[in-house]
Amino acid sequence: MSHIVVSTWRFGLASNQPAWEILKSGGSALDAVVRGVEVAERDPAVKSVGFGGYPNAEGEVEVDAAVMDGRNLGYGAVAGLKNIATPAAVARRVMEKTDHVFLVGNGALKFARAQGFEECNMLTEHGRRAWEKWKRERTGPPADVHDTIGMIALDQHGNFAAACTTSGAAFKLPGRVGDSPLIGSGLYADNDAGAAAATGRGEEIARTCGSYAVVEHMRHGKSPQEACEAVVQHLIARVPSARPFQMAYIAIDKYGNWGAAAARSGFLSAVTNNAENQLYKSRYFIGNGGVG
Amino acid sequence: MSHIVVSTWRFGLASNQPAWEILKSGGSALDAVVRGVEVAERDPAVKSVGFGGYPNAEGEVEVDAAVMDGRNLGYGAVAGLKNIATPAAVARRVMEKTDHVFLVGNGALKFARAQGFEECNMLTEHGRRAWEKWKRERTGPPADVHDTIGMIALDQHGNFAAACTTSGAAFKLPGRVGDSPLIGSGLYADNDAGAAAATGRGEEIARTCGSYAVVEHMRHGKSPQEACEAVVQHLIARVPSARPFQMAYIAIDKYGNWGAAAARSGFLSAVTNNAENQLYKSRYFIGNGGVG
Repeated sequence: MSHIVVSTWRFGLASNQPAWEILKSGGSALDAVVRGVEVAERDPAVKSVGFGGYPNAEGEVEVDAAVMDGRNLGYGAVAGLKNIATPAAVARRVMEKTDHVFLVGNGALKFARAQGFEECNMLTEHGRRAWEKWKRERTGPPADVHDTIGMIALDQHGNFAAACTTSGAAFKLPGRVGDSPLIGSGLYADNDAGAAAATGRGEEIARTCGSYAVVEHMRHGKSPQEACEAVVQHLIARVPSARPFQMAYIAIDKYGNWGAAAARSGFLSAVTNNAENQLYKSRYFIGNGGVG
Repeated sequence: MSHIVVSTWRFGLASNQPAWEILKSGGSALDAVVRGVEVAERDPAVKSVGFGGYPNAEGEVEVDAAVMDGRNLGYGAVAGLKNIATPAAVARRVMEKTDHVFLVGNGALKFARAQGFEECNMLTEHGRRAWEKWKRERTGPPADVHDTIGMIALDQHGNFAAACTTSGAAFKLPGRVGDSPLIGSGLYADNDAGAAAATGRGEEIARTCGSYAVVEHMRHGKSPQEACEAVVQHLIARVPSARPFQMAYIAIDKYGNWGAAAARSGFLSAVTNNAENQLYKSRYFIGNGGVG
């Protein structure tokens, strides 16, 4: 079994490192992805995930996250969670410590408190200033808003896991949820077939259950690369309103092969396995006059 | 085009009636399902949907709902919404009046207020008494807890729509969300292929993106009946922990054919079209020693 971890965007590479240490030493894919995405969650320089994320329209940072365990199709998620820097770990507790799979809003915060998670002020000085500028000028969101970290891993025992975590669209309506915590949209993992995760404009990604679709394509014989391309192409063909936006998928299969595809140029995948540890530019379908 | 509306459970038949009036007079599938499920939402005798639903563990009724428009894969949803008796109509407003698709918790309530929805006390005397008994005796939830109404329709113009609305699991953790508002899990609709909706134990249903899977099976040639059966069988085969629970799907295809299947006996589909207006017992796979 060829263990591997793949995540989204440039900041994924730093997040892959602790995940890879866990995989390399024989640990579980689930431990790897939850520990891995925590790097991005805690990094204030990552302005779209966890601590230091851009706030909502009322100046509050609300985060969403989900985890999936490919062994039993286990799923845990939180959305509209305030004051907690590590929502993916909370999502894992929802999966493991409750009879439920998804907690939102104040209920999610109460649960996190009861589980011993520490509260903190999630809004950095940078986030506050960006929000005040937006309120004054209504110039639209900053350019770096939709950069959810999605991470997928295959461990040495043949188990898949996936995690997604985000502070969501900058200056969103309070309570807005995108694709990231939604099973099948932001992420999917099934030991029988593979794992996938999404990043980009959540409102469009959610329409086609793309992470589930990528995994189903792999179940029926497509490579991870072919599967990601098929889902991006279906989305931009079927939903013309999605075409202005970036949307991207990453995937891994049972053999440790990986793939990625994006609607537009600029998407990067961070890939770490026994052979390499690097960023790859992704194939894309809109922009610069055609397929990239 | 053979217009039709199908919904879940015995109470679906009353909800089908205003939906059918809309379909019969040439109205849209989206109008039909939102208007149809409102009957169950407003009926205090339906203790699992909207007004009169069982409250959460803290005695508050929180509702979840979603709508999907098969024309453009449009999606709108709310979850953890308090004080609003018609959450499916709020979900439609999220789809039509915002750049977002899903609002949760206090953010969803603020949005509903801004859209002019009236607030009301959702907890009936029956709900309050049941909750007090549960707090005293911790006897587990009442037997009638997972009865989400899901409704799917095909209109005379070939358009599909779906709606789901629920007060969720009785005495749930505050903020708990099941499959109902999750696209692909609780519902899916695509004019190219058909529509489906789910009811039953949301925590298990969410694991397989079953409503999306039903629609994909129909896209690839299965009948609605075959598609629903395939998804139920996959879920109970792949997820042994799901086997104690009821989980059911309904589906319609482009020709106005319908189908339904359930994990266990007792599931009813309400079917209304030009030829009939009645309840059907569903095929099921666990219980009484085998396939029913």
